[in-house]
Amino acid sequence: MADQNNLNSNEQQHDLNLPKVLIHGPQGFSSVLQPPFSQNFHILNHSSLPLHQFLATHTHHCSSVAALLCDGGYPVTADVLRLLPSLRLVVTASAGTEHVDLDESRRRGVRVAGAGNMFSEDVADLAVALLIDVVMKISAADRCLRKRVPLGSTGFPLASKLAGKKVGIVGLGKIGLEVAQRLEALDCIISYNSRTQKPLVWYPFYSSVVELASNNQVIILCCALNEQTRHVINREVMLALGKGGVIVNVARGALIDEKELLRCLVEGEIGGAGLDVFQNEPLVCQQFFGLDNVVLSPHAGFSTSESYLGICQLVGRNLEAFFSNNTLITPVI
Amino acid sequence: MADQNNLNSNEQQHDLNLPKVLIHGPQGFSSVLQPPFSQNFHILNHSSLPLHQFLATHTHHCSSVAALLCDGGYPVTADVLRLLPSLRLVVTASAGTEHVDLDESRRRGVRVAGAGNMFSEDVADLAVALLIDVVMKISAADRCLRKRVPLGSTGFPLASKLAGKKVGIVGLGKIGLEVAQRLEALDCIISYNSRTQKPLVWYPFYSSVVELASNNQVIILCCALNEQTRHVINREVMLALGKGGVIVNVARGALIDEKELLRCLVEGEIGGAGLDVFQNEPLVCQQFFGLDNVVLSPHAGFSTSESYLGICQLVGRNLEAFFSNNTLITPVI
Repeated sequence: MADQNNLNSNEQQHDLNLPKVLIHGPQGFSSVLQPPFSQNFHILNHSSLPLHQFLATHTHHCSSVAALLCDGGYPVTADVLRLLPSLRLVVTASAGTEHVDLDESRRRGVRVAGAGNMFSEDVADLAVALLIDVVMKISAADRCLRKRVPLGSTGFPLASKLAGKKVGIVGLGKIGLEVAQRLEALDCIISYNSRTQKPLVWYPFYSSVVELASNNQVIILCCALNEQTRHVINREVMLALGKGGVIVNVARGALIDEKELLRCLVEGEIGGAGLDVFQNEPLVCQQFFGLDNVVLSPHAGFSTSESYLGICQLVGRNLEAFFSNNTLITPVI
Repeated sequence: MADQNNLNSNEQQHDLNLPKVLIHGPQGFSSVLQPPFSQNFHILNHSSLPLHQFLATHTHHCSSVAALLCDGGYPVTADVLRLLPSLRLVVTASAGTEHVDLDESRRRGVRVAGAGNMFSEDVADLAVALLIDVVMKISAADRCLRKRVPLGSTGFPLASKLAGKKVGIVGLGKIGLEVAQRLEALDCIISYNSRTQKPLVWYPFYSSVVELASNNQVIILCCALNEQTRHVINREVMLALGKGGVIVNVARGALIDEKELLRCLVEGEIGGAGLDVFQNEPLVCQQFFGLDNVVLSPHAGFSTSESYLGICQLVGRNLEAFFSNNTLITPVI
């Protein structure tokens, strides 16, 4: 009866003809996703066991799992795919798919659906919010007050205006464009760098990031991480950006040489940074915690209540489409 | 020789034919304003003595002071005016003029110039920044991280989207309109309350603040403080705004019944608040310091480096205009 352990009680009474869906993500993820789908799918939840142990001990259940719902950072490796022989669909609730072995999925004929552009607006909002916070020193001033620095003293940092700031965006995909539109509405002056110049975009294009940095006061990272973009923000770029310069990263931590960033922040070689992502996640370099010219965010680009609802609906629409033999809403492969 | 004490050394060598200008403000104020004007004016600085003592002991100098430059919160009372018998102009570097005895100035034929709309954009920027910070929980998340809450844990507050939020503005003067324009560009839906409906404004108008609150998710205070508006945000308004509601105050602390605000924040009757002003300034009620749904700002609506430069230029232009018999740039009386 090992196969019956660690399963939610509701699924044992469930209609066994419904497609079997395994959920692979953090606790909150399961509790959000499970209820809306439990009518149309036979939901399996391994939350009380690590996945590999669950797969090894619940072989009967796993042999008939047709779909896997996963979150970013929850690996779907070749091994996982091998232990789910009936799997036909992986739906990840994340924008990135680097945790899913796409080659092995393709080889096995397993389709993969992602979050599409579901989080683009939230990530763009966060980029703008972090920039405003760094430039206007909102968090730093709030922290000062909570440390009992008296009102009217000279202990508070002097803010700067957002309007008129020259902002260079690295990576002008969906998120980069959303950031550009928001900042243009707030009277910033936009230019960008990307692999190639965009045909239908009138913002000035710089083919090198150093050139982008030396012509702007702010750099916002919205590009993918790959071997070409790893440490794309190095010391040379930071020095080109200059002492008042601000860097905002809502993409991937390893786009920035974080050691150099810390050195430049401490030495005043750049003005400040707003960071939603870090080089060694889930660890955050503790040296950031002592700096007042940094605003830190917990890789939360998509953590609005509206997006939780949205992704939940999107996952449901992908599942329904797949099991009704319709086209996936947001296919990856 | 008492009259020569406590005066800056440069003024003793100064051309005594230049108009004599006394500076009345905090240390930083004098050091910013003094250098640019020292060529065209004979600057007096009482920074090492309280003003009344300076006026009493430097009667010779004070008898020929033609202009007074003051900051907000530095009173220019009837007594001060009496002790400066040659005074013809007061220039205050503040948006408000409540620290200047305007009746007595008028009676003595002393002109008064203010900051005009110099700070309107900064105050509007701050209102937007505080709203974004409260809604997206930027400061709260930053504080969480600095307390070593691990990335990926459920310890972080869930943010909300700014776009689509219904925002009610109380007071649609220059600042209120600037706030409305910025938030419209960020896809918020604007309505307002003011003493009377504005003829050329198409935003929906509510004649009562309770009605405004019950039709919006956010209230932003941009109105003047007077007997009609004192505690305009009371418990009834907060309950009408509701549990997810956010209040932003960049105007005056006493517009809000602060005790009730604290109670509503603690009891979850409203969602959050962004406050640049407080009821008992310079004191800030310490109960705010323990709340995560509040963003606090040190009455800093105009504290950008760009505005310091701007006000400095505006003060200079008012002085030059007055002493060349031209119209004041930003006259109050």
